[in-house]
Amino acid sequence: MADWTDCLNFGISVAKQASKVVLTAFQQEKEVKLKSSPADLVTETDQRVEMIISSAIRSQYPQHRFIGEESVAAGERVELTDCPTWIIDPIDGTVNFVHRFPFVAISIALTVNKQTEFGIVYSCVDDKLFHPQRGRGAFLNGEPLHVSGQEDISQCVVVTEIGAERDDLALSTMTSNIFKLLKLPEVRALGTAAVDMCQVATGGADAYYHIGMHCWDIAASAIIVREAGGVITDTDVIAASSAAVASRIAQVIQPFPCSRDDDDQHR
Amino acid sequence: MADWTDCLNFGISVAKQASKVVLTAFQQEKEVKLKSSPADLVTETDQRVEMIISSAIRSQYPQHRFIGEESVAAGERVELTDCPTWIIDPIDGTVNFVHRFPFVAISIALTVNKQTEFGIVYSCVDDKLFHPQRGRGAFLNGEPLHVSGQEDISQCVVVTEIGAERDDLALSTMTSNIFKLLKLPEVRALGTAAVDMCQVATGGADAYYHIGMHCWDIAASAIIVREAGGVITDTDVIAASSAAVASRIAQVIQPFPCSRDDDDQHR
Repeated sequence: MADWTDCLNFGISVAKQASKVVLTAFQQEKEVKLKSSPADLVTETDQRVEMIISSAIRSQYPQHRFIGEESVAAGERVELTDCPTWIIDPIDGTVNFVHRFPFVAISIALTVNKQTEFGIVYSCVDDKLFHPQRGRGAFLNGEPLHVSGQEDISQCVVVTEIGAERDDLALSTMTSNIFKLLKLPEVRALGTAAVDMCQVATGGADAYYHIGMHCWDIAASAIIVREAGGVITDTDVIAASSAAVASRIAQVIQPFPCSRDDDDQHR
Repeated sequence: MADWTDCLNFGISVAKQASKVVLTAFQQEKEVKLKSSPADLVTETDQRVEMIISSAIRSQYPQHRFIGEESVAAGERVELTDCPTWIIDPIDGTVNFVHRFPFVAISIALTVNKQTEFGIVYSCVDDKLFHPQRGRGAFLNGEPLHVSGQEDISQCVVVTEIGAERDDLALSTMTSNIFKLLKLPEVRALGTAAVDMCQVATGGADAYYHIGMHCWDIAASAIIVREAGGVITDTDVIAASSAAVASRIAQVIQPFPCSRDDDDQHR
């Protein structure tokens, strides 16, 4: 098995470098562009941070490929091959970033042969670095993480997000899902999918679900949950501390149609 | 005008002392008692921390009175007089505390002539001390805080909580409120009313609303929002960065009946 630890360490140093730009901009007024809705924003900083990360990695690993949220938004196709591929979300939680709600993450993952070798979720405002590696476990600032292992849905803290979709069908499905879930557990929302999913890895939350995720939203955080002993379902992402909880949530929630990142027409 | 700064400083030192007990217990398995539902919990630590805080204050200020969440749960009446009265929530966010979801706060306020002179919200896991004083402003670890001043509801991040009520009427009203609100802004939930409201004071969120609050949930955090320049409405608490946003939320959400802390039969 190839060892990707050097790449992981390089990725961490690049994420820490890039976080300085995020933290400086966090305190300042931002020029904001609306994507699909006021819940779907992009700033000059998102684009700049993605550029910093991808340039640094490109000069270190010129053979590797990239999928980045902002490059895709600018028209690049999403195509995952067997080549080592870095999947980058420069700022997960852009709405938080714009509003200075204090949870934003730089999210980086490396896939090889379409399998994630490691993830990096750097929650910069509170300086929490989550770094799982395939087969070696998940860590927060070097300390090993474990999911709660909770199997009883009625005892669960579930993290979720409303997401950027704001049409009536999406909204009413989401609120009816919340209603159905609330008959069971507690609900939290931090405003960043990556940091939300890391809560499942720490055991602080027992499950996360979200309909309509992009690959860069979860590439790094899915391996964190898995390496911490949790479960990730395939479609309409559910991350859970146990298969029992994941399947109970899947029974309750109702999906709604979302486009895929590898659709040509998805933007 | 009397100066209550000595009491504030004493309260801060007591909160910091008490937080050591909270943080030690945070990492351990807890023995949990259900109050009204799995979303309404109490632990031995809640009771112990309230005892530590009230004993320390009682020996320093023997003439002062107390209203504490756990003393009220144990049968004490809630009666606010003109005497200096300390209102204490030993652990705001007990469900978070039990699950190790990393937001819990010690909340302390002092009222004199039924007016809040200062508040202390100590978010212990991330070591954030919020300390407003009447007429002197709101501070986070010594730095002054200001609300966003946002007046356009469509640009708002709103923080809210589901709360402990789990009957069908409460749940369906809450989810329909969320549906109506979501047509407008973004929603977050950290799981502690006190820390949620502090987000409005920092400007990171633009509003908070919650139906069915107790006085100890908001005594300290209401003055933080006000001293940071925000607005608190009287009933079915809405905290907002501006009167415009508070009144827009009041138009949208629908209340449901909750008992009052000074009802004799409220528990």
